[in-house]
Amino acid sequence: MTPHTSLIDEALQCFRQEVNAELSRLMEPQTGIPDRLLESMSYSLLAGGKRLRPLLVLLACETCGGDRASALPAACALEMIHTYSLIHDDLPSMDNDDYRRGRKTNHVVYGEALAILAGDALLTQAFEVVARDVRPPEVAALCCLDLARAAGAAGMVGGQVADLEAEGKVLGSMDALEAIHRRKTGALLECSLSLGARIAEGTEEQRLALTHYGRCLGLAFQITDDLLDVRGTQVATGKGVGKDAARGKQTYPSLMGVEASQMRAELLVAEAVESLSMFGERARPLETLARFVLDRDH
Amino acid sequence: MTPHTSLIDEALQCFRQEVNAELSRLMEPQTGIPDRLLESMSYSLLAGGKRLRPLLVLLACETCGGDRASALPAACALEMIHTYSLIHDDLPSMDNDDYRRGRKTNHVVYGEALAILAGDALLTQAFEVVARDVRPPEVAALCCLDLARAAGAAGMVGGQVADLEAEGKVLGSMDALEAIHRRKTGALLECSLSLGARIAEGTEEQRLALTHYGRCLGLAFQITDDLLDVRGTQVATGKGVGKDAARGKQTYPSLMGVEASQMRAELLVAEAVESLSMFGERARPLETLARFVLDRDH
Repeated sequence: MTPHTSLIDEALQCFRQEVNAELSRLMEPQTGIPDRLLESMSYSLLAGGKRLRPLLVLLACETCGGDRASALPAACALEMIHTYSLIHDDLPSMDNDDYRRGRKTNHVVYGEALAILAGDALLTQAFEVVARDVRPPEVAALCCLDLARAAGAAGMVGGQVADLEAEGKVLGSMDALEAIHRRKTGALLECSLSLGARIAEGTEEQRLALTHYGRCLGLAFQITDDLLDVRGTQVATGKGVGKDAARGKQTYPSLMGVEASQMRAELLVAEAVESLSMFGERARPLETLARFVLDRDH
Repeated sequence: MTPHTSLIDEALQCFRQEVNAELSRLMEPQTGIPDRLLESMSYSLLAGGKRLRPLLVLLACETCGGDRASALPAACALEMIHTYSLIHDDLPSMDNDDYRRGRKTNHVVYGEALAILAGDALLTQAFEVVARDVRPPEVAALCCLDLARAAGAAGMVGGQVADLEAEGKVLGSMDALEAIHRRKTGALLECSLSLGARIAEGTEEQRLALTHYGRCLGLAFQITDDLLDVRGTQVATGKGVGKDAARGKQTYPSLMGVEASQMRAELLVAEAVESLSMFGERARPLETLARFVLDRDH
């Protein structure tokens, strides 16, 4: 690690703390919210994690010359939607996972009913935060629209359905696998970049360059996720290892082998970095983040 | 029924058809949405029903002098959120209902996983429709905010949690029961009126008068719902009868008796109608709608 990436690493750690502080603030008790509901929402939302989506929002905003603080609400909204999707995906009727980020999953602790409702509430609150705190309101409306498209039936939820349908089936091609991941994880990552650019009021050209970066990063992220499932350890990843294979899920390594998967992830990260060229030095943190995704062990 | 109310009845029927047509249009196949997901969403969304919330949006808009067509997207969004809440409430881990509106519930037909995801997608699409189709964008942002507050942890979801927690317990008072219903059903009804007023760009005084109407109507609606559970028939209501009592749920009739409940509903409807006085003749349809709520048999 060069001193340069180490500085950026410290900056990212600082941004992560800003996000965590703001998420905690958003989970403070409020009239009308039942205690157990708020507890269940906070249990999953404040469980730590990489905060990748919020970081992408903040960095996209700064890369377009915007003020990071103005993007903090949108950053939190992205994490709320990501967390809701994890809570629902872990349910017994879906992936039936008992552990997540090294802790018991929401429904194991709070029961299925409250887990479903905590997810619903987090999804809803994401829109509340964006509609209320993003300025000006025209940008807030655009951000709500991006968020809904990325999270909805043609985006993340559609990807989860396609993923469940594909379990135990043989997918015809890499294209079919990528079509699932582009929606299931890619759409929300891409959306993170888009929101940051919108809030900075960057040009449409800047926004499209950043979402292209997001699309490449999303696929690279999924491939490294699959690779970690094959090679990782439960301690580092905080969840079961080898579960994909056990469940008959098709993954990049199962379709194209470990080495070719690693190669593809590297090429995607190179393409992601390439698409940042118009931003020059200002894009350094996003470049570094892309390389972290490649090298992560959890 | 006077000729006057019969005319209004026909108008409401016509509005309902406009809403149904627009909902069907919104459920047309789109790239990226898996067929089964769309089928599951449509199964519940296009199952008919009173379309009370959409009617309230359209009528509130016209009552403030706005153009009904401009409120149609928001009307559909309200029905999407209402439908998602029914799908999730019916799940085995919640109310565990097998029938709804006279048909099998979503999870009975499509399985739990798809039912949860169809609900998630409908909730998300509601925000998509409002953010995209409500004009101008400043009003769209306000409508997204209203919607999220009404549907979220301090509104509808919070009410559902409080309702589940209250099952089999003795609630201290009518206030405790009303606090549940104000969130579980009232918040979304009130929000319907608020969105109609916002889209018509009515005055804040008009909007508050309409939301007061909505608050009274919401409670009256819940009381008549409880009364129907005691007195209704499965044919008319399309769902099991006497389920509340069987489940140990406290209701208005169980707390204050059938006659006093009926009286309270009547007083609430009178208060709802009273709050429309500033609108004169233009509020006639909302008045009629309030009386329908009182007299309905399903």
